[in-house]
Amino acid sequence: MMPSDLSPSVIGEVVARALAEDIEPGDVTTLATVDAGTPCHAHIIAKADGVVAGLPVAEATFHAVDPETEFGYAAHDGSRVRAEVMVARLDGDAHAILAAERTALNFVQRMSGIATLTARYVAAVAGTGARICDTRKTAPGLRALDKYAVRMGGGRNHRAGLFDGLLIKDNHSRAAGGLAEAMRRARDRSHHLLKMEVEAQSLDEVQQARDAGADVIMLDNMDVEQVSEAVSIVRGRCELEVSGGITLETVRSLAECGVDYISVGALTHSAPALDFSLELVDG
Amino acid sequence: MMPSDLSPSVIGEVVARALAEDIEPGDVTTLATVDAGTPCHAHIIAKADGVVAGLPVAEATFHAVDPETEFGYAAHDGSRVRAEVMVARLDGDAHAILAAERTALNFVQRMSGIATLTARYVAAVAGTGARICDTRKTAPGLRALDKYAVRMGGGRNHRAGLFDGLLIKDNHSRAAGGLAEAMRRARDRSHHLLKMEVEAQSLDEVQQARDAGADVIMLDNMDVEQVSEAVSIVRGRCELEVSGGITLETVRSLAECGVDYISVGALTHSAPALDFSLELVDG
Amino acid sequence: MMPSDLSPSVIGEVVARALAEDIEPGDVTTLATVDAGTPCHAHIIAKADGVVAGLPVAEATFHAVDPETEFGYAAHDGSRVRAEVMVARLDGDAHAILAAERTALNFVQRMSGIATLTARYVAAVAGTGARICDTRKTAPGLRALDKYAVRMGGGRNHRAGLFDGLLIKDNHSRAAGGLAEAMRRARDRSHHLLKMEVEAQSLDEVQQARDAGADVIMLDNMDVEQVSEAVSIVRGRCELEVSGGITLETVRSLAECGVDYISVGALTHSAPALDFSLELVDG
Amino acid sequence: MMPSDLSPSVIGEVVARALAEDIEPGDVTTLATVDAGTPCHAHIIAKADGVVAGLPVAEATFHAVDPETEFGYAAHDGSRVRAEVMVARLDGDAHAILAAERTALNFVQRMSGIATLTARYVAAVAGTGARICDTRKTAPGLRALDKYAVRMGGGRNHRAGLFDGLLIKDNHSRAAGGLAEAMRRARDRSHHLLKMEVEAQSLDEVQQARDAGADVIMLDNMDVEQVSEAVSIVRGRCELEVSGGITLETVRSLAECGVDYISVGALTHSAPALDFSLELVDG
Amino acid sequence: MMPSDLSPSVIGEVVARALAEDIEPGDVTTLATVDAGTPCHAHIIAKADGVVAGLPVAEATFHAVDPETEFGYAAHDGSRVRAEVMVARLDGDAHAILAAERTALNFVQRMSGIATLTARYVAAVAGTGARICDTRKTAPGLRALDKYAVRMGGGRNHRAGLFDGLLIKDNHSRAAGGLAEAMRRARDRSHHLLKMEVEAQSLDEVQQARDAGADVIMLDNMDVEQVSEAVSIVRGRCELEVSGGITLETVRSLAECGVDYISVGALTHSAPALDFSLELVDG
Amino acid sequence: MMPSDLSPSVIGEVVARALAEDIEPGDVTTLATVDAGTPCHAHIIAKADGVVAGLPVAEATFHAVDPETEFGYAAHDGSRVRAEVMVARLDGDAHAILAAERTALNFVQRMSGIATLTARYVAAVAGTGARICDTRKTAPGLRALDKYAVRMGGGRNHRAGLFDGLLIKDNHSRAAGGLAEAMRRARDRSHHLLKMEVEAQSLDEVQQARDAGADVIMLDNMDVEQVSEAVSIVRGRCELEVSGGITLETVRSLAECGVDYISVGALTHSAPALDFSLELVDG
Repeated sequence: MMPSDLSPSVIGEVVARALAEDIEPGDVTTLATVDAGTPCHAHIIAKADGVVAGLPVAEATFHAVDPETEFGYAAHDGSRVRAEVMVARLDGDAHAILAAERTALNFVQRMSGIATLTARYVAAVAGTGARICDTRKTAPGLRALDKYAVRMGGGRNHRAGLFDGLLIKDNHSRAAGGLAEAMRRARDRSHHLLKMEVEAQSLDEVQQARDAGADVIMLDNMDVEQVSEAVSIVRGRCELEVSGGITLETVRSLAECGVDYISVGALTHSAPALDFSLELVDG
Repeated sequence: MMPSDLSPSVIGEVVARALAEDIEPGDVTTLATVDAGTPCHAHIIAKADGVVAGLPVAEATFHAVDPETEFGYAAHDGSRVRAEVMVARLDGDAHAILAAERTALNFVQRMSGIATLTARYVAAVAGTGARICDTRKTAPGLRALDKYAVRMGGGRNHRAGLFDGLLIKDNHSRAAGGLAEAMRRARDRSHHLLKMEVEAQSLDEVQQARDAGADVIMLDNMDVEQVSEAVSIVRGRCELEVSGGITLETVRSLAECGVDYISVGALTHSAPALDFSLELVDG
Repeated sequence: MMPSDLSPSVIGEVVARALAEDIEPGDVTTLATVDAGTPCHAHIIAKADGVVAGLPVAEATFHAVDPETEFGYAAHDGSRVRAEVMVARLDGDAHAILAAERTALNFVQRMSGIATLTARYVAAVAGTGARICDTRKTAPGLRALDKYAVRMGGGRNHRAGLFDGLLIKDNHSRAAGGLAEAMRRARDRSHHLLKMEVEAQSLDEVQQARDAGADVIMLDNMDVEQVSEAVSIVRGRCELEVSGGITLETVRSLAECGVDYISVGALTHSAPALDFSLELVDG
Repeated sequence: MMPSDLSPSVIGEVVARALAEDIEPGDVTTLATVDAGTPCHAHIIAKADGVVAGLPVAEATFHAVDPETEFGYAAHDGSRVRAEVMVARLDGDAHAILAAERTALNFVQRMSGIATLTARYVAAVAGTGARICDTRKTAPGLRALDKYAVRMGGGRNHRAGLFDGLLIKDNHSRAAGGLAEAMRRARDRSHHLLKMEVEAQSLDEVQQARDAGADVIMLDNMDVEQVSEAVSIVRGRCELEVSGGITLETVRSLAECGVDYISVGALTHSAPALDFSLELVDG
Repeated sequence: MMPSDLSPSVIGEVVARALAEDIEPGDVTTLATVDAGTPCHAHIIAKADGVVAGLPVAEATFHAVDPETEFGYAAHDGSRVRAEVMVARLDGDAHAILAAERTALNFVQRMSGIATLTARYVAAVAGTGARICDTRKTAPGLRALDKYAVRMGGGRNHRAGLFDGLLIKDNHSRAAGGLAEAMRRARDRSHHLLKMEVEAQSLDEVQQARDAGADVIMLDNMDVEQVSEAVSIVRGRCELEVSGGITLETVRSLAECGVDYISVGALTHSAPALDFSLELVDG
Repeated sequence: MMPSDLSPSVIGEVVARALAEDIEPGDVTTLATVDAGTPCHAHIIAKADGVVAGLPVAEATFHAVDPETEFGYAAHDGSRVRAEVMVARLDGDAHAILAAERTALNFVQRMSGIATLTARYVAAVAGTGARICDTRKTAPGLRALDKYAVRMGGGRNHRAGLFDGLLIKDNHSRAAGGLAEAMRRARDRSHHLLKMEVEAQSLDEVQQARDAGADVIMLDNMDVEQVSEAVSIVRGRCELEVSGGITLETVRSLAECGVDYISVGALTHSAPALDFSLELVDG
């Protein structure tokens, strides 16, 4: 497998699950129409321009069905591709390749869609100091893959889950009886390798969070004017993240305010798929 | 749980997996900032207009974290909602509700996005005899939920996987040594409760498939003119399905040609999420 | 592994489970009496005449315990064997071979028993157009293996489960409020690649099902006379399947009535095992 | 659930697995033809005389699909039933009952078949001191259920697997370099709560095993004359078990020789199913 | 269940696994000697002085075997107990209580042993500002329980695993080509909610880490003199953690140097069990 | 892998679980600081004198993360090591080795701790006929590994769980209505390859158990005088096991009384870890 920082066991699990839902009781069409042992040569072709991601997952999918299938990379995750470009070639038993085809492409289409949209956001803020981040708004069960695709598009990951970062949102403050109390408790009860990020919904809250020693402040759904003012309030005493309702149209002006991070849910919950197809070729 | 035709065991599995990736080693923020036993009242609110889907999955998510949480339906899957409308209310322990929040919303946002896009396609062909179908281009591991969301949007499901329908595609014909041979084998080797659908990429192939006794012919990436001609060729001797590259702009003219099914991959691979939020309220 | 159309992941699961129940906490006898590393040569021998099935599952069983064990095929699934004929030879570590012995033989004995009984039914209808099918009356957890064994005996599979075929039985009609309503709903609500089979318990119901457009009619527990009459009623407008209470004595006369399928529960729920033994030999 | 000594977790696993293979991607017929929420009353009826076993497993199957289904026992595992006798009644949602029907019956049919055959063997040796035992020749994955069914038929269980009994067979002796060495090692290396059973294939070996201190000797495939002589040789110094090739015709004469145990593989590998059906009734 | 911050799904998994290894194929003694349905009243009694932990896990163990068993708390996790004090009472079926006894006690003995040893370390540093922390040196598979037991003993948790804290050890620096480069990469490549802890093995490295902006410095295996000097070097510019070779004899003098955290592997890898027993009592 | 009598599937499961809890969502430090593909050479070094155990489990841990990592044995399980001795060498990708390091060492530290303590007990009774045994007081989920470590230390295993040995304890007798009744039932209801051990808490009970035909009597918490008297009472008519409250100080005098087995819970519940470290070396 092409080296990637995706854990093989994570890939193994999502691939097994995806294959199970598509072919577990058998691929009746291929079993019926194609003789076992029929050799097969095929190409995976991009059908649109974009950034490719997910090829190692596609490889793992073909290998899960038949470890003998040869999978040759013609492109690497994170590289730009144009429509009609081949990104991988396959050699193996037709049974195995046809049975795995759709599942493998579903991974590549989704992940490349995310990488492609991420790359557009990253390009939009080029030259500013702001970095485009993902969120936890990922497809259920595909968190690790979605976040990897963001990296392939040039984006930066936010925390992986609720377990590796303290982010005190409005709801936590309310349940704790106020922001100050929530921050005090967080400092007291969490382990000493976690920073503390605090969501602010007004400039007042920005000031309050700054004074209480937040390491990062998340500016929730603020416009350019408010964000600029927040930057002035904080003056580098902590980092700033912008989140909520950001589009390709608005992202640059927010970045130019001088924030550190811009997190965009759409990267993973609304990226349209990038189309790919698998085509049999003469050996 | 609200009755739905989603299998509880399928829901249970996807919910467990989604929670695991987000909170398995613990929700450090909630554990630190909110005292165990703090009561919590909350609403789930739509933030845009659309068709809601996935509420029983959200309910299952909250119950997986704490079976004591009360989940009250204020809307039902398949109903239209407008921005700022409440779709569910929650009562329970703040720990459990805050830990499950994001995972539950991720389900509802994705599924409602699919239902909403499906409903637009269904509306676009209203009055024609054509039915909008999904494809197998679903998010890996979420097949059953994606297809349920299509139903909630008024769409019709195609086969669930490779195991419950014979669909002879171009690649099968090539691997079998031709369409006729592929169809002969399929009839011979598959069980007697399956129809046979055949993909045709030209009008010639439509004729060939019709003559060989296909039950359904899939017209792959054909334009309105070709589709019309295919309808004439077939004259009701088998059913017709259109697939490939269909958009909201083109779908009606294809439907008006007189086809039976229009299958649209975008329903499940490119539907933008419908936004929802969870807001704490005073008890 | 010998190529077969059994999915390796299905084999893997049943083998793991079967080994677990027999040897999970350890094979105390072999561990105590045989030194690790003792080489072992063994033959698997048929102890009765019949059709062998399950050798790839036996191979997988030995390999699950020790991938180094060599498994040589001396017969192939689906071939006839006579008592005292060797069907496979084994070379490897005595620990691994003795620990896996019983589990491997249990698979081969059961599957060969099914294949052998199937072959007798198939022979009994030779020359008629009727095909012998299995049912869903399989040993729980062994569906895929039982159905594979039926194929090895020359039989034909019916649907794999409740998910890949519409078969409206008496109980569905009752719950739906009548056969006609059940068929109407089935046509409306199921995907377009499924045929519809309808169970008929009287000649009246045969007529009703034929008129309502059933693709296949299952004649439930009818005698030769009734079956003959059903053939006349239907006159090829749909296919006919006979089911219920069929024995080796009655099967040919039913087949000669001109039906298409005869499904026999006994193939999988009452086939006596075919005996095999594993015998150590000098290397 | 009716109290039984079957572990709920074992039942839970086999039921989940069996349901998965039959209905995991959905019961398309019931979903299509029966409206959700349709009430259903049904009886499970024996279609032949025998000993019933497996009702708690059937109950668990219906409950796995829908915990709300009411399952009323009209007979208990281990009791004799006659054809047309009702053994259980069901009330619940038609969807759930029809989806679980076949899987539940498959358990009861197999387990009652085993119990019924066991009861015939037990009756055949009535009045002698011999006890009818099962073997490890069970359906892979169903060991615990098969052995429970033997108990329900009045039989006695042999060891559960390779982990809870020392039984030195011919193959162990060969691999160890002789029976004496195998027994010496077994005494040395196994824990002190296990007896030692030794397989003897000749009267010489019976003598040898007795002298070396076997706790039990298994007489492998011996005829009545040999068994009688073995009884004389041993004179109560250890227990005797007869195994191999035993039929309902030969079992009594073997029992009358004075052996302690007669183990019969056919109980679990060749018992024909006992037929049951599920019939909807008016509420 | 008594509220605790242990996730029910984590408890469920470890309990299921522990029961499986002890009783999966059945508790032969209890099944044989005790009639099903025999009522049972029992107490769990501490047999030594210490801090109790694990009662909710014991409760879950009894409930996993039989949800009907009543488990009454007579002490709470984190409280001190003396020998012969009852910590819980049980009412239920004797079968279930006796089968679960050992597994439940194994949890309580181990967890209370950890809590008790932790409490001794915490007491030893009372009045200093130093906090006693655990490490990742836990029993494989029991991480969450071991760390919970540390909390019950008054200790503080360090990071949960490799996923929720950046801790650059000597091996990382070597593999990265030096400490400075390792820190630069860590800042660049990890998400913005993680602090950075750096292991220092000399006072030079303390200075280097401080200057490069470490948030926390871990003083590895340093004596009191070195630790004191490290405190002077850092002067509050970052936090200090002491680790390696700490005993109850040395811990206070290290704490008095003014460090923030003292992490002690022995808490979880070498705590002797605290003895408990389960005793049947008259109802 | 070095041959051992630990089942590869058991090792596979505990290793997977242990890695999951430590690194499942990713080793953030190594991923950030070390480039993929950095070669790494390392030694595992004992940091104290003792008996090593668990090296094959460590090997499996490194291989689970990366099958390409080379693991060279410099010592074998069961051999004595001195502080600063290398027990294994590693070559491979730094990512994989650093990610697996802690988990692998946790296995070796725990298992070597158990082996080392066992060896001390075994040495203490050298020359007497008594054998040191373990108990079921193992770390939950680690039963097989703990018992293997005992073997590596020269100890002998008691039964593996509740399924492979009849041991009638005080609680069973009480629940059965007396020792005699419990023994009668056990003989009647359990399979014929199990001996019967009976716990005695007084010399009266020793006599009673002996007369009722116990195969082994466990003397519970008796002192040297009582144990001596028990030996006289039994006079070799059954075996004797001493259990409860045994220490390195008392074990020899108990052994010298002439008992057969001495079972010591501390071997597995209170053995302090033996320290090991992993050190990178120049290639």
